[in-house]
Amino acid sequence: MGFWKSLFSTSDAALPKTTEADGSSAQGVMVGNSRIFFSTDREIDLYELEELCDAVGWSRRPLRKVKKAIQFSFLVVSMWEQKGASKRLVGFSRATSDHAFNATIWDVVIHPDFQSKGLGKALMRQMIKKLRSEDISNITLFADPQVVEFYRGLGFMQDPEGIKGMFWYPD
Amino acid sequence: MGFWKSLFSTSDAALPKTTEADGSSAQGVMVGNSRIFFSTDREIDLYELEELCDAVGWSRRPLRKVKKAIQFSFLVVSMWEQKGASKRLVGFSRATSDHAFNATIWDVVIHPDFQSKGLGKALMRQMIKKLRSEDISNITLFADPQVVEFYRGLGFMQDPEGIKGMFWYPD
Repeated sequence: MGFWKSLFSTSDAALPKTTEADGSSAQGVMVGNSRIFFSTDREIDLYELEELCDAVGWSRRPLRKVKKAIQFSFLVVSMWEQKGASKRLVGFSRATSDHAFNATIWDVVIHPDFQSKGLGKALMRQMIKKLRSEDISNITLFADPQVVEFYRGLGFMQDPEGIKGMFWYPD
Repeated sequence: MGFWKSLFSTSDAALPKTTEADGSSAQGVMVGNSRIFFSTDREIDLYELEELCDAVGWSRRPLRKVKKAIQFSFLVVSMWEQKGASKRLVGFSRATSDHAFNATIWDVVIHPDFQSKGLGKALMRQMIKKLRSEDISNITLFADPQVVEFYRGLGFMQDPEGIKGMFWYPD
């Protein structure tokens, strides 16, 4: 199976100490009655991912294309709630990259039940940490207006030196 | 060797007819005494690419990483001047992608001697055409302030629906 990463392993200096106080352990972090884990395993049930994306109101996308996008992403980090032997997908993010200079983060989603608990930040910090460990120094994303402040809080800068994010869509 | 693409092949409806009148042919397009071609071949001499990037004043980057970035880009389009049997790299661009939904264009460079001739637009149209042929519908980039208008002229939109390009750099 996949690689399972404790949310607050002692080696993870990038994670917030404030959250660590909430109940970190070698096996994950407790949020209420749940233990939360991260994984970089790409073997994600596409229907479970679709359910997660439905929960935040995203438009549905062809699963065939979602599967391909996951396969060809440079990094996938998923977040899971574990209760006993069962686990549930509660967060997801992925990044494309040239494996050298640039990475771009896409599809950041946290289940509404798990929002406002610092888990979105923890997920993003996992992404940043993994990308940095691969020597990627330019981490980019395109933020919807309502999450610009969220990303700013993580150290992302909007339009640095006047650089503008631009999009081309088919007619 | 690589795949060589005529600048104005008859199948290329995306290219501007106005430029076609400048001298298109089955073998490329004439710009002054030069014949200009595009290629998606990744076997690019890294020193020649470095020379091109030097010419526009870019900071030098480790060739090892440039090689890796080219290898792991989804698409590379280079532009060449051919005079007799010799050819010279005069333009370059590449894109990362998840092979499904999104592509991000990086490292667009045109040699100063070949700027203001419509070749930058032609290069970008090649990029867009190739990405569209792979069913990528969300083509993105991060534009320096001085080239925002250039990209706008190609149909790129700045901050559509308030979406902001954001960057994270290491401290």
